[in-house]
Formats: sequence, structure tokens, C-alpha cells
Amino acid sequence: MTTAKTLRVGMVGYAFMGAAHSHAWRTAPRFFDLPLQPQLTAVAGRNADGVRAAADKLGWDSVETDWRRLIERDDIDLIDICTPGNTHAEIAIAALEAGKHVLCEKPLANSVEEAERMTLAAETAAKNGVFSMCGFSYRRTPALALAKRFVEQGRLGEIRHIRAQYLQDWLSDANAPMTWRLDKSKSGSGSLGDIGAHSIDAAQWVTGLNISGVSAMLETFVRERPLAGDLVGLGGHGDLSSDAPRGAVTVDDAAIFSAKFDGGTSAGAIGVFEATRYALGRKNAMRLEVNGTKGSLAFDFEEMNVLSFYDAAESPDAGFRRIFVTEPEHPYVGNWWPTGHGLGYEHGFTHQVVDLVTSIGEGRQPEPSFADALQVQRVLAAVESSAANSSQWQKV
Amino acid sequence: MTTAKTLRVGMVGYAFMGAAHSHAWRTAPRFFDLPLQPQLTAVAGRNADGVRAAADKLGWDSVETDWRRLIERDDIDLIDICTPGNTHAEIAIAALEAGKHVLCEKPLANSVEEAERMTLAAETAAKNGVFSMCGFSYRRTPALALAKRFVEQGRLGEIRHIRAQYLQDWLSDANAPMTWRLDKSKSGSGSLGDIGAHSIDAAQWVTGLNISGVSAMLETFVRERPLAGDLVGLGGHGDLSSDAPRGAVTVDDAAIFSAKFDGGTSAGAIGVFEATRYALGRKNAMRLEVNGTKGSLAFDFEEMNVLSFYDAAESPDAGFRRIFVTEPEHPYVGNWWPTGHGLGYEHGFTHQVVDLVTSIGEGRQPEPSFADALQVQRVLAAVESSAANSSQWQKV
Amino acid sequence: MTTAKTLRVGMVGYAFMGAAHSHAWRTAPRFFDLPLQPQLTAVAGRNADGVRAAADKLGWDSVETDWRRLIERDDIDLIDICTPGNTHAEIAIAALEAGKHVLCEKPLANSVEEAERMTLAAETAAKNGVFSMCGFSYRRTPALALAKRFVEQGRLGEIRHIRAQYLQDWLSDANAPMTWRLDKSKSGSGSLGDIGAHSIDAAQWVTGLNISGVSAMLETFVRERPLAGDLVGLGGHGDLSSDAPRGAVTVDDAAIFSAKFDGGTSAGAIGVFEATRYALGRKNAMRLEVNGTKGSLAFDFEEMNVLSFYDAAESPDAGFRRIFVTEPEHPYVGNWWPTGHGLGYEHGFTHQVVDLVTSIGEGRQPEPSFADALQVQRVLAAVESSAANSSQWQKV
Amino acid sequence: MTTAKTLRVGMVGYAFMGAAHSHAWRTAPRFFDLPLQPQLTAVAGRNADGVRAAADKLGWDSVETDWRRLIERDDIDLIDICTPGNTHAEIAIAALEAGKHVLCEKPLANSVEEAERMTLAAETAAKNGVFSMCGFSYRRTPALALAKRFVEQGRLGEIRHIRAQYLQDWLSDANAPMTWRLDKSKSGSGSLGDIGAHSIDAAQWVTGLNISGVSAMLETFVRERPLAGDLVGLGGHGDLSSDAPRGAVTVDDAAIFSAKFDGGTSAGAIGVFEATRYALGRKNAMRLEVNGTKGSLAFDFEEMNVLSFYDAAESPDAGFRRIFVTEPEHPYVGNWWPTGHGLGYEHGFTHQVVDLVTSIGEGRQPEPSFADALQVQRVLAAVESSAANSSQWQKV
Repeated sequence: MTTAKTLRVGMVGYAFMGAAHSHAWRTAPRFFDLPLQPQLTAVAGRNADGVRAAADKLGWDSVETDWRRLIERDDIDLIDICTPGNTHAEIAIAALEAGKHVLCEKPLANSVEEAERMTLAAETAAKNGVFSMCGFSYRRTPALALAKRFVEQGRLGEIRHIRAQYLQDWLSDANAPMTWRLDKSKSGSGSLGDIGAHSIDAAQWVTGLNISGVSAMLETFVRERPLAGDLVGLGGHGDLSSDAPRGAVTVDDAAIFSAKFDGGTSAGAIGVFEATRYALGRKNAMRLEVNGTKGSLAFDFEEMNVLSFYDAAESPDAGFRRIFVTEPEHPYVGNWWPTGHGLGYEHGFTHQVVDLVTSIGEGRQPEPSFADALQVQRVLAAVESSAANSSQWQKV
Repeated sequence: MTTAKTLRVGMVGYAFMGAAHSHAWRTAPRFFDLPLQPQLTAVAGRNADGVRAAADKLGWDSVETDWRRLIERDDIDLIDICTPGNTHAEIAIAALEAGKHVLCEKPLANSVEEAERMTLAAETAAKNGVFSMCGFSYRRTPALALAKRFVEQGRLGEIRHIRAQYLQDWLSDANAPMTWRLDKSKSGSGSLGDIGAHSIDAAQWVTGLNISGVSAMLETFVRERPLAGDLVGLGGHGDLSSDAPRGAVTVDDAAIFSAKFDGGTSAGAIGVFEATRYALGRKNAMRLEVNGTKGSLAFDFEEMNVLSFYDAAESPDAGFRRIFVTEPEHPYVGNWWPTGHGLGYEHGFTHQVVDLVTSIGEGRQPEPSFADALQVQRVLAAVESSAANSSQWQKV
Repeated sequence: MTTAKTLRVGMVGYAFMGAAHSHAWRTAPRFFDLPLQPQLTAVAGRNADGVRAAADKLGWDSVETDWRRLIERDDIDLIDICTPGNTHAEIAIAALEAGKHVLCEKPLANSVEEAERMTLAAETAAKNGVFSMCGFSYRRTPALALAKRFVEQGRLGEIRHIRAQYLQDWLSDANAPMTWRLDKSKSGSGSLGDIGAHSIDAAQWVTGLNISGVSAMLETFVRERPLAGDLVGLGGHGDLSSDAPRGAVTVDDAAIFSAKFDGGTSAGAIGVFEATRYALGRKNAMRLEVNGTKGSLAFDFEEMNVLSFYDAAESPDAGFRRIFVTEPEHPYVGNWWPTGHGLGYEHGFTHQVVDLVTSIGEGRQPEPSFADALQVQRVLAAVESSAANSSQWQKV
Repeated sequence: MTTAKTLRVGMVGYAFMGAAHSHAWRTAPRFFDLPLQPQLTAVAGRNADGVRAAADKLGWDSVETDWRRLIERDDIDLIDICTPGNTHAEIAIAALEAGKHVLCEKPLANSVEEAERMTLAAETAAKNGVFSMCGFSYRRTPALALAKRFVEQGRLGEIRHIRAQYLQDWLSDANAPMTWRLDKSKSGSGSLGDIGAHSIDAAQWVTGLNISGVSAMLETFVRERPLAGDLVGLGGHGDLSSDAPRGAVTVDDAAIFSAKFDGGTSAGAIGVFEATRYALGRKNAMRLEVNGTKGSLAFDFEEMNVLSFYDAAESPDAGFRRIFVTEPEHPYVGNWWPTGHGLGYEHGFTHQVVDLVTSIGEGRQPEPSFADALQVQRVLAAVESSAANSSQWQKV
């Protein structure tokens, strides 16, 4: 390992996403052969004690209290952005302009305008071999990657229906505390951008089709929530007294939209999407079903190691086949455990690092590019526009 | 049994629905104690040979080749309408005016205007003790009746989300033949009225809430289909050669809509509905999920004897509880088999007869009334209106 | 229908099984074309009032209070035996000797010796065109019949493993009342003969292999139970006060055994069986799994319309395929409802009547014959022998 | 971290188990607060190049080509044994006598005699604060740990039934190559010790009951297999030509046994166990179901993040509750991701390290001790003895 070329990483932010990314940087080279060896060089955060403790815990060699300093350092090759969406554009553009590769958490930005600027910066940088990727990590779930493979192999035929749900319930309790995720100025949107964006990206990526128009409804069930002292973090697991001071929820709690898809031979495909944090009992039900003329696929992240596939050619004895996606032939799986030994949530981040480092090492643009993420951002904007306009159909 | 009062039934139509209704009339008194003993007095159909054979097979005592003759007969107490939707209004109104009770298949009619006239006739007749019911038979599935019981008991709290899908796949094959169900002049609409109507009725009935507005999209994937000689029947299982003459499909193949619900303490509930016959691999997936502030329910007709229930009070060890709805305490179940011995599709029709005959015997209005069915019809109309108007929000 | 030949049935017993059989006799000709039209001619029971009420409710034309009288009647062609096992031999042999066809509930008898005498009587009668069948009704579940078809088609290859469970829980409550099913003198055995016999028959029938040896353990968890006034019936749903007089449970509560199978190319197949009424939460989990060299099958009666099939040829994308056994090509199903509309428990009895009447009409021996049921009885005896002898291996 | 006390680990073996253990040593301190910081100090293996490459890949600081040298080193505090069972006793006893803590993979040994000597050494060492643990890692699956919690909380009442299956299929192909796991001199036994041992440990641990007697059957379906050049490794995924030289399979392919359990108030509990690598389609189905008088539990490692629980107190609306074991209150889970984000196979090893290091740090005996593992070894021996003696009942 000592002679291999390295990829020195600087990460901004160290909460939920930071822990997941750190694990991925540490773990990817232990199970996969990478062209570059990642180094956990530095982590940045505004709170000096917090970032120091995080660095120790997560395995980073040094700390910074200003992300700008991270970008200035000569010993950093890649900036990994794990902060709320309102900071993405500034950090990513600065990093790219400084010649650092960028991995940016999703959604790419809080507006189409920001995303467009980021995409422009990314495309400019790419000409100089400086690459960027947006962290739609669910693409790296083996079962979803297998789903995409099936579509590409033509096993579904022409696609007609897509139904995507992302159901959580951590806001069901009206007294769960306010968090930055419910503050539009930080998060950009609520369920729509936080989890709905994953569904949009997965639906488009798996099918190879783009959403061309939507009709949408957004709903906010609980308009005020108790303020906790610390608004950073995931929230959702605390419960404050009902007389605590309250802050305004300025994002959607739930988003529902119908969609049409363009592209290839499945131009007539239609979809229905739902994202919510109020589906009591559904914890992380990121579900995708695709119905074609020859076959169908169904996936639920709550059973993340399973892909269900229906092959009409087996009729009349056809049925959804529950593929346990743990065979060595399946995407990513051969580098892990023997057949039948399932993976967990964080493996998606490890695979993301594998794909990113491999692309960089080979001088190729990684996927999803910022341009791919911009397309998702445009769908998000169209959803908000339709919802604000009596659900009227809105082109993307 | 000889001394019990009887209820003499005349049925119009003898295809799929006719067979199901006949079984119900024969079977209900064998398992339930009814105040009136149903007699299968006469069945009507235009084809003399066909109706004669059907009468023999299904157990009817006599036949008519004109439904008007059935209504004229003195020895008929109830008219059971199993014909396509375009005939419902004329038959039902004539029957009610002749003092016959009416059981009418769903959807109630092919237009709101027809449904309004039927409802008026029904309300007039009811004043004279002549009753009518619309055949939303899924209400009689024990698991859905248990779902309604749970909502009424407050076990869900305030309702926030309703998601209803009715997924079939019998039109996935673009060469499956044309049937009357695809001809708007007979069926009124496609998936929307045929199966979506069941979802609308079930969602409203289980939650006790009414849909107050919708935004919708309708899609027709296959606009021409080969003509078979006989357009009556269920269709879907044949496959004609690709050079057969083709007829125009004039109804929707798929319907998607979002909805808001009114009523009680759950005025803010939102819903998403999808009905299609192109969801390859889904055979009769009539699904309903309801999320409240205290609990959630999930149902899929493909596992019709199961109701899943999530009780948040059991947190952190909560989980969807798979209730096998075969206990004697469950709706309808005590009259059948011991615990654990599931029921089938046709039991819903038998229970429908039980409820109808019991209501008539007790001089009470059966449910769903024509007025209840009219509300469903208004939702169907709003869906079509929104879909025709760029998905713009449409009040019901 | 009036000119068709009839099959006049006399039924002995009218409890749980009597109700199921009556429904089957009434319903079979309504959905299937039979060579003989069943007539519900007479039902026999010792209690005059009880049998009279049952006849009215279940649809029988006349009653007898002595089964011998039923056999004497000229207007009876077939005796349907729905009484406890200790009465089977006497009734069946008398009926066969009187030239009546016989349908006898399972298990065939309470001992091998009785079963041998019955089989001898059956084989003698068959030479004169008088036929008999034992009521292993689970064979008529479409999903299990499809399983057998798959084995016969070679889709499983050589069979290696069979695992059969029949799990119920209606005796979990130690205060559930004593019933005739817990009295060895009436029932012959407990879980073993009541439900384990179904598993044995299904395992042998589906695989085409016979059990050649067993090692077994029997257990009785609750050795005394409160006596209810009426010991006839299914029991299990009542709960008597703890100071009620108690009767001795003289049968097994649970039976576990391993087995070897003989026959054909799968001579090395091994099996494990478990039958119990104390598996809390399992209501009627009659499960069968078969693993071969090419494929596997899994079935659970709690999802009776589903057969799961694993086809190794689809590797690495193989997975258990959930076949919804509701296609017209599936056994029995084409005569019922459209695809996706599931059947219930009682359909097995209706199909049993269909197969029995068809065999009789065509002058063929119906299956399972008394000889087939005798083989099951021998397995039951071997299980009891092994259990009584420190689980030592016992040949069948 | 720099000032924390360390625990310097030397690992013997670096195949499948070595990779899993290495990941655990690296990862545990990143997510859990440990009293001692593990150091991956050295790994030992006979092949110098192989062990050097493994050290680089897996993150070990140094290598040895003789495990004895590892024990001699002063800078090693703990020996982690990941080699086949025939080597366990010698290594473990030497390590303990040298004052090193020991983590030993399961099964503890290849014979009761070896296991007894190891247990004696462990108990002697423990008096000096030198501790040992056997690697039954499935105990660290959150869902199984929650199952044990439920039993301890009395939520199951008195236990009556235990059914444990461990079903794999990687030997279904008769041409899959010979491996050391099929050589009795190395592995001790086949499915019985490799996977059945996990079931035995889990069943005893979750219920708190010990197996007191068994009746067993062992079967070897394929008695010769093609020899690959390298017999070390997992095997099972290759397929050699049918004319390759063949080696004798000297272990069981499948093991079936019934059992009685002793202990506490559930002395009458009975169990049935099955372990096989020929259950086509079952990849790693390590299943455990426990039925008590108040509740039941069911688990399947193929859905490792789920525990199903049936609470009879909820009757008549009871049902198996599918608990998604991802809440912060669940065992181990709070240190990972938000609710709904499942864990994978290797997390069990990480938790094992956490528990081991915590026990050592606190000067407490870790569990399972060698004595606990010896009890499992005695069950394995009783199973083999019964199987060799016509399945006759064998006390443990």
C-alpha cells in the first residue's frame, strides 16, 4: 500500500452524513482494489472541540474550523461536502476552482440557479481532469444496481409504470423537535428534497428515462415545532415538552406528484411519487416499482438486499421472484461475503467511494455528475411550481 | 325454513358478476341466519339459450329475455343488476318505481347525472320501505371491515395519509382483445371506474372521510385492440392475431390522482390513488394503506385474509402486525370456519347479500346507499375533469 | 339438469366437517361440469333435533338418526363419513358391502388394523364398480396440486429435502376445554393424526415418494383439561373456569419426526415433520417445502393461493418466485374467478367432490384410495412406535 | 485516543473469518466507546506472501508465519483464532497459558475432549484476569439480542416449542469442489458443526434453556467431490469438470434432530433442528422460532434486521408483529444509523468485538465463555452419537 498513489480527502461536516462518509473512506480500500488509496487527511467544522472529537472518533488526521482553509491546503485532493444544502454551491464551486475533486451530498443545491452554477463549475473543472459527483448513494445499493442492469438487458421491455415511495415516520409525533431539516433557508425543502430527491434520481437512473413533466401537491401537517437547543443533527428521536418555544416549519412534510417520462422507446411511461416523514410505521421505505411490457421490478430499502422481478415469459407460472442480491455476480457483492450474507445501509457509501475513486483514477467523469443532479433539481423545482399553482401540469 | 318469509330475487345479467351474485344468493342462508330466505326466482338476459343455460348452471328457477319483464313480475321482490354501467340507471329506476328493492353493481352509473337520478329514485322509494344498495363488495372483505372498526375505535388517531392502489395486469399484452370494458359508451370509463371506484369507496368508507378535491392524470397506453367476435365478458385471457380487425379503446388504461379529504378531526388528510390494468405481475392488488397519528393500517387483496396494523404505542418494539383475519370475533368470520381457515373472493358477495337481506328484513337503509355511490361518482367525474384540464385541482 | 344422472348422497355427521362437505356437494355442480348431479338426499345424526336443524341449514332433503338406516336406503348411492375416526371402519365397511360408494374423512381409521380391513373392503367393492376415497382435502388446494405438477414435470430434479410443518395454536391456552379430539378412544391420536396426517399425505403425494422409516417424539404439554358440557365440536375457542371438572388428555399435543423416503430416483430424500396445536400465533400453518437438485417449492396454507418456486437454472438471478395460483391454467382455478381472485378453505372440499364424482362417473378408482390412506396410517403407527421406544428408528 | 489504553491483537488465519474479524477490529472503536483501543498488531499465516498481502489489505501492522511466534510476542494482548476447528485447542491453550486473552471461532473444537481441555485452560486463566470467548457471532445480531430480551422480560411466558433451521444451498451442485469444510479431520463435522452449532447456541442463549437430550439423523448426499488445487477457503462457488480427481466427503451434508430442553419453568420445551447446505434457494436462512404460552418469536437471518413477535394478549387482533430492529433502544443499534437504516452481516462481528473488549476492560468474563461453547459441543456429540445408534434418544 505504501507505494500506491493516494487520494487525500478533506471532509466538511461531521454529523450523520459525515460518519457515513468517513466509514466509507476507511473501508472501501479494505474490500476493493482501488487505483488510489484514500487518506482521511482533514475534517472541517466550525466548532473546534466538536470537530476535534469527531476527527478522533471517525479517524481523520487533522482538523480545520473553516472549510475555506481546507480548500487552501496543498495536501488535499478531494473535498467531501456533508453539510446542509444551503452551503453546497459556495463550497463546491470554490473547491472546483481550486482544482479539488468534489463529492457533494444530495440534493445538489437548494435551487436550480445554484445547481446550474455548480454544474457549470463542474464541467469547466472536468476539462482539467478535476471531477465531481453528487451523493445519490442509493444508486450503490446492489439491488437497485441490479434493477438498472435488468432494464438495460431489456428484461422489462417497454416501461409503462413507475411508482416510487419514500416513506418515513420520524415526524409523526407533532412534538418531535424542530431541526435544520425543517428550515427552508437551510434545507431548501422538506421531504421533497431530502428523500423525494432520492426517489427521483433512482427512478430516472434505473429506467434510463427522464421526467418531463409533473403535477404535484405539497402538504405541511405540523406548522410549528418545539425548539431544541441544538438544531444540528437528524432530530426526530427526541420529544420536547409541549410548552417549549416553537419554531416555524417552513418546508413540506409530504410531497405527492404524478409524472411523465421521456426517452427512448418508453416515452409514454407514467409515474407516481410520494415522499413523507409521516407514514407511521414505515421507517425507511424507499420503494421503487417499475412495470414494463415484458417484466416488472420491485424494491424496498427496508429489505435492501432483495430485488423482486416478474418475468412475463414464465406465464402462467410467473410470479415475483425474490432475488436475494448476495451472489458474487451481483453488483458490488463479490467483494464482500459469501452468498446469503446481506449488506447494510452504509455499504452504499462505501460503494460510492469505490466508484468515485475508480473514476478519478481512470480519468473518467463519475456518475451521477452535477449535471445529472441538476436534472433532479429541475424536477424538484417543477414539483414546487405545480404545487404552488393548483397542481397544474408543469414541464420540467 | 318453510315458514320463513322469503325474498324473491330477479337478476339481470349472468356473466362474471352474475355468477358471483348467484353463488352469494345460494350460499348466504347456509352460513348466516337471515330474516328473509332468498329465492333465486328468475334471471334475465337477451340471449334465450344463454340465459337458459345460465339459469340451470347457476340455480335460477326461471328465465326472462327482457329485464322489463322481470320488473313486471309479481313474484319478484328484488332486482339484482349485474350488467354494464350504461344500463344501470334505466333498470334501477324502473325497478324502484315498481316497488322492487335493488342491488346494483358498481360503479353506480356512467355519469353523475345518471347517478343523481338513481339516488333520487332510491330516496323516494326508501320512504315506502323499498331499499337499494350499490355493490361495492370489497367493503365486505373481513380485513377491510376490521380496518374500518379500527378507525372507528380511534386506534389510528388523526388520519394523515391514505394511499390506495388497484393494480391488475390483464391488459399488459397489447394484443389482448377489445372488450366492452374498453368501450366508453358501455363502461363509462376504464381502470378509473372499474377498479379505481373500489379504491375510492374503500378509502372513504374505511376512514369515514370524503374526498373533497383531486388532481388527476389519465393515460391510455394501447389505443386499438383486436376485435373478438364476442365483446361480452371479462376478456383479458385471450390473445388474437395481430392482423385481426381492431377497435378503438375509448377509456383510460390507467388513472393516477392525488386527493384531499374532508371530515371530522382528520380534515387535513391527503391521499394518492392509482388504478391500472398494466402493472405486470400484479393480478388483483387492491391495496389500501392509512397512516394516522397513533397507528397505521395496510391491506392488499392479494392477501385478502390479512390486515396489517401498526400501533405506535408499542414503540420502540412496534411493527406492522400481520393480523390473520380469521378469528370468530372478526367481521363475518364467525359464521364460517375455525380460526386460520381463510376465505376467498366470492365471500364478499355472500356477505353483501347477508347485509342487504338483513337491512331489508329490519326495514333499514342498507349501505352503501345510492347516495354513497353518488359521492364516488362525483369523485370519478372530478378526476376526469382535472385530467382533461392539465391536472388542475378540481373540487368534488 | 333434469335429465342428467344423479348421485344421491347420504352424509353421516354434521359438525365442522359436515358443514364443509355439504357446501361442497351443493357448490361443485354450479362451477364444474360433472358426469353425475349430486343430490343432498339425507343426513344422519344421533340427535333428532340436531340433525333436523342441520339438514335445514345445510340443505339436506331428509334425515336419519341411525347411520345404519342411511345405508339401508335404496335412494342413497354414496355415504359421506364425517364422524370421528373410531367410527370410520364400521360405517365404511358396512356401506361398501351394501354397494354404496364411500367418501371417508381422514385419518382413515384409528389403527392400522382397521385401515387394513377398510382397504380390503374397498378393493373388493371396487371390483364391482363401487368406489371409495379418503378425504385428504389439502390435495385439492390448487397450489399443492400445482406443486405436484412441478415435481412430475421434473422441475425439481432429484428430491433431497422435505420439511413439513402443521402448526396451530388453539390449545395454547391450558384452560381451553376438553374435546373429543383429545380423547384417544375417539380420535385415535392428537396433532399427529388430526393434522400431521395431512402433512404426511401431502408430502408423499406431492413428491411421489413414500416414507420408509421414521424416528419420532410425541409430547403432551397439558394433561388435564376442563370438561365442557358438550364434547362434540371443534373446541378451542372457549375457556372454562379453572375449577371446572377436568378430563384426561390421552393424545399427543405435538409430534416431531424425521423420515426417510423411498422411491424412484430420489431414494435418498430425507424429511422432517412437526405437528402441533401449541405454536402460538400460527393458526393453520400447514407448510410444505421440498428441495431438489434443480428446484425447490414452498407452500403455507396461511397463504393458500400462493406457491413459491425456486428454479436453479435462473442463477445467479434466481429467487423464490411467488406464484399466485389463480391463472386459468392452474389446477381447478379456471372454473372459478378471473386471475388474481383467490380461493378459500372450503374450495378444497368442492374440488374433492369434483374429483370424486368425476372418477365415479367415469368408472375409475378415485384418489386417494383407502390403500393410499392405509400407507399414511402405517406411517402414523411407526411414529407412535418410535416415540414409545426412545425415538429408535422404525421402519414403516 | 492517544492516551487510551490499548488492546493489541494478533490474529491467526486470514480467510473468510479473518476478513470479517479484521473489519470488526478496525470498525468497533469508530462507532462505540471502548475501554481499550484495539490495535491490529499482527496477523499469522503459514504462507509468507499470502499473509503479507492479507496484512496490507486487512490493515494489520505486522505478520508472522507461525502462530507460536505470535504468542511469544510481548506486544500482543489477545489472540484471535480464525483457523479450522482442528487447530483451535492447541492454539487457544497455548495462548491462554501465555497470558493472552483469546477469541476463538466456533465451533470451539472438533471434540468434546478438546473442548473440555480448552474450558479448563480458560477457567484457570480467568482467575488471573485472562479471558476467553467463543465466536458465536449470531448472538450479536440485534434482532436475536432483542429476542433474548423479550424472553427475559417474560413476554413469551413458558416456552413450549423451539424450531431452528439453518438452511444453505452451496453444496446443492454435486460438482461443487471438495473443501476443508468437508474433511472431518479438519472441520470435525459438516453442516452440523458449521451451521447447526450456531442454531444450537442461539436456541439455548435466546431461551435461557439447555438441551438435555436429542434424537438425530445425519445424511451425506454426495460422498465424493472433485478436488480443487487449493482446499483452503470457502468453496462452494466453483464447479469443476466431472472427470477431476475426487476426494471423499467425510462429514454430514445434513443434520436433523429433535431435542428436549431443561431449565427454569420451561422444563418441558421441545425443539426440532435442521441444518443443511442442500436446501436449494435458501442462502443463509438461519431461522429460529420460539413459541411460549404468552407469545412467540420468529427470526430469519435472510431478513436479519427483523424480529417477528406475536403477543397473545392482543387477541383477537393479535398477529406476528414485524419489528424492524433499527430503533436506538434496540441492542447495539443506537451507535449506528437513524431508525430504518438496516445493518449487515459483518456488524455481528463488530458487536462481538465491542462486547469482548468491554468485558476485558471491565475485568469481567465475556460471553459466550468456553464453558458455554463446551455445552454446544456436548450437544453436537450427542447428535452424532444418536445418529450412529439408529436415532436412539441420547442424553447430553
